[in-house]
Amino acid sequence: MRHILLIGAGRSTYSFVEYIKQHSEQEDWHLIIADQDYELAKEKAGDHPRMEAVSFDVKDEISRVSAISKADIVVSMLPAHMHIPVASDCIALGKHMLTASYISDEMKALDERAKEAGVILINEIGVDPGIDHLSAMKVLDQIRAKGGEMLLFESFTGGLVAPENDDNPWNYKFTWNPRNVVLAGSGGAVKFIQEGKYKYIPYHQLFRRTEIIAIDGYGKFEGYANRDSLKYRDVYGLKSIPTIYRGTFRRPGFCRAWDVFVKLGMTDDSYQLEVSPEMTFRDFTNLFLAYNPQDSVELKLMHYLNIPQDSELMDKLTWLGIFDDTPIGLDRPTPAQVLQRILETKWTLGKDEKDMIVMFHKFGYMLNGEKKMIESSMVALGKNSRETAMARTVGLPLAIATRHILNGNISTPGVQIPITKEIYMPMLDELADYGISFTEKEVPYRGY
Amino acid sequence: MRHILLIGAGRSTYSFVEYIKQHSEQEDWHLIIADQDYELAKEKAGDHPRMEAVSFDVKDEISRVSAISKADIVVSMLPAHMHIPVASDCIALGKHMLTASYISDEMKALDERAKEAGVILINEIGVDPGIDHLSAMKVLDQIRAKGGEMLLFESFTGGLVAPENDDNPWNYKFTWNPRNVVLAGSGGAVKFIQEGKYKYIPYHQLFRRTEIIAIDGYGKFEGYANRDSLKYRDVYGLKSIPTIYRGTFRRPGFCRAWDVFVKLGMTDDSYQLEVSPEMTFRDFTNLFLAYNPQDSVELKLMHYLNIPQDSELMDKLTWLGIFDDTPIGLDRPTPAQVLQRILETKWTLGKDEKDMIVMFHKFGYMLNGEKKMIESSMVALGKNSRETAMARTVGLPLAIATRHILNGNISTPGVQIPITKEIYMPMLDELADYGISFTEKEVPYRGY
Repeated sequence: MRHILLIGAGRSTYSFVEYIKQHSEQEDWHLIIADQDYELAKEKAGDHPRMEAVSFDVKDEISRVSAISKADIVVSMLPAHMHIPVASDCIALGKHMLTASYISDEMKALDERAKEAGVILINEIGVDPGIDHLSAMKVLDQIRAKGGEMLLFESFTGGLVAPENDDNPWNYKFTWNPRNVVLAGSGGAVKFIQEGKYKYIPYHQLFRRTEIIAIDGYGKFEGYANRDSLKYRDVYGLKSIPTIYRGTFRRPGFCRAWDVFVKLGMTDDSYQLEVSPEMTFRDFTNLFLAYNPQDSVELKLMHYLNIPQDSELMDKLTWLGIFDDTPIGLDRPTPAQVLQRILETKWTLGKDEKDMIVMFHKFGYMLNGEKKMIESSMVALGKNSRETAMARTVGLPLAIATRHILNGNISTPGVQIPITKEIYMPMLDELADYGISFTEKEVPYRGY
Repeated sequence: MRHILLIGAGRSTYSFVEYIKQHSEQEDWHLIIADQDYELAKEKAGDHPRMEAVSFDVKDEISRVSAISKADIVVSMLPAHMHIPVASDCIALGKHMLTASYISDEMKALDERAKEAGVILINEIGVDPGIDHLSAMKVLDQIRAKGGEMLLFESFTGGLVAPENDDNPWNYKFTWNPRNVVLAGSGGAVKFIQEGKYKYIPYHQLFRRTEIIAIDGYGKFEGYANRDSLKYRDVYGLKSIPTIYRGTFRRPGFCRAWDVFVKLGMTDDSYQLEVSPEMTFRDFTNLFLAYNPQDSVELKLMHYLNIPQDSELMDKLTWLGIFDDTPIGLDRPTPAQVLQRILETKWTLGKDEKDMIVMFHKFGYMLNGEKKMIESSMVALGKNSRETAMARTVGLPLAIATRHILNGNISTPGVQIPITKEIYMPMLDELADYGISFTEKEVPYRGY
């Protein structure tokens, strides 16, 4: 019997647990679900004979080492900054480990010791990061194998509401952590390279510099740049590529409206407002506008940011309630906390509503003196409120990688991300069985 | 004989040293000028019989304690974050101390021990902060003594070029640390209160929300908000004042043009550009604009920020050289470092040119049911390249306070800033002898 330890039993673990359950007899697996909240772990384990729930505090070294020592592989769904003690124990005890988080410098520093211990420690093996690596590296390696020289690589991912439930003026609902959505892009300038020219966008202009991309059957999406596209040149072996750009998808029109919040300063999370819970959404909006006892908050905002009264943009803002007399109900919050509160009143996904993950890559390359282009896209839809697109696209890669490691198909030790053929080939094949597959097509080359 | 220790012999100490020199016989003073750079200290001391230069490293505890132990009062012109070890030694050794820096929380925490030791430790006793406190508190106390109730307080200071040398399209030259000018306002939202309504401005909008103020004989100035005006409510005893606003003066039109740099992201000091010293000013500007192989950098910038071609704003930008093919000569600089380099090619004050310090306060209050307003203004002009307005307005308050402390006219111990009558009355009187005086006038009340 092989023992799998899952640390963290939150919402996005549903599909992981289901996969393990389905394969547990055939593979002779035993799954221990560990969470600080024992009831949550118990609920996930149910009464399945091969599943066990345990209470677990990552900061308690004794219970942590004891739990890890009994496992053959550990899947950590903890917040990114909490992986290191788990990773250290895994190396010390010779256990493999998987996370869906961005690889940190501290994690990278463990590489040599992981290799010495023969431990496989794969990070960034969820959806984004995760499926983006698998799907991009497959096409990149194909192009390079043919002798192609990469000219352009663009990649976008978006977590959105499924078309059947897309019924508000923003074409957006929260399908994951709302706080991360509010703070998206903040905290530093965006960096990328286009036709050999470095480009830098400050946060406060980010949502005005977007790109529209159409995906067959799903209409148009709007991409805004992620923070640092440059680092992917090394990761993907694209050191001298003239154009590389990674971004996030929203529906067209979202970014222009979101830009209003950025311009007003409503996404700032660095200071507390001197306000009480009785302050209304309208008062909150007024905090960022010039003082004038006569003019309305609406007019001041339209004038300040040059927004026409009869615009869809103004409809979006009004619909959200930023001019309403609803109390914020928060004491000395940051601007970002109030904005999140406002958004949560309107953008919450209903119990029976479904989410959608959209991923898109564009590969431009030179082959035999000819410029060519491949577009690759994937759309995953949620099945229900538990089997969301997010839970499936995060949980299934982790679960499939778990199986391949336990069965010896993935065997290269060290701290890594899933960019090698050994990893992406079997994983993409099996993800396709679960309906998570990419459509690749050749299109005429289009540069800048 | 009384011994004065001056730590730091930089440019802004000139007037301090001159004052001490002039009074040294009469007051029986001995001045020790201490600096890491012994030659600089020696140059300042000259061959004056009552002056002595010493080499001094604030981090070397032995030389620090030894120098402080021989003094009766210590004036620290060190960078703000280096005052604490000096202050601790002063308290331990029972020596008074003065600084022109903003009071830090660490400094405040020394208050009780300073009181126990009978040590006077005055911070913020330069120009801004410094003369602003003295001059504002005098009028505030007068209004309150008459029974007036404060409705509005605004205060602006600017370090500018003197009118006779004001000959460029920006009406601005560097008269103090260029780096601080480039980074001014960055690092957090601006906070103030207007007619009882809290107002918050994000950094990227700061230079679009300005106020025009005229000063008799000197024309118009443009004020942009300083970072936190709210804290002055406690400091000045204005806890329930409905309007308080502190700002910085430039000449009209400056802020709108500076806003271009902010909007482009050129004032960002948080990351390094991937560029080499050969990159030109023009390339630098292009880093922040969309990629397009045909369009000029000028057109892309005008279109991006909606700037008319025939505007004064465009003249300002062109004059500065941001479209020129001059190499930046810096390796992997931050955007702010490149911008500073560009500005230094044009904004440097000539050897024979003079600077100017402008200060302005507006006091609105209710007296016997009537709304009243007082405006108070001060303009100080530089005399020559050493006796700059900046050196005079920073150095003279420090020097005058030194004299009053040594002579027992200022005698209240503790960590403080100069807001008490004991301090501001004698100081304002003597500053007037040096031509640093305020013109106060009643004007019709004007609120918002």
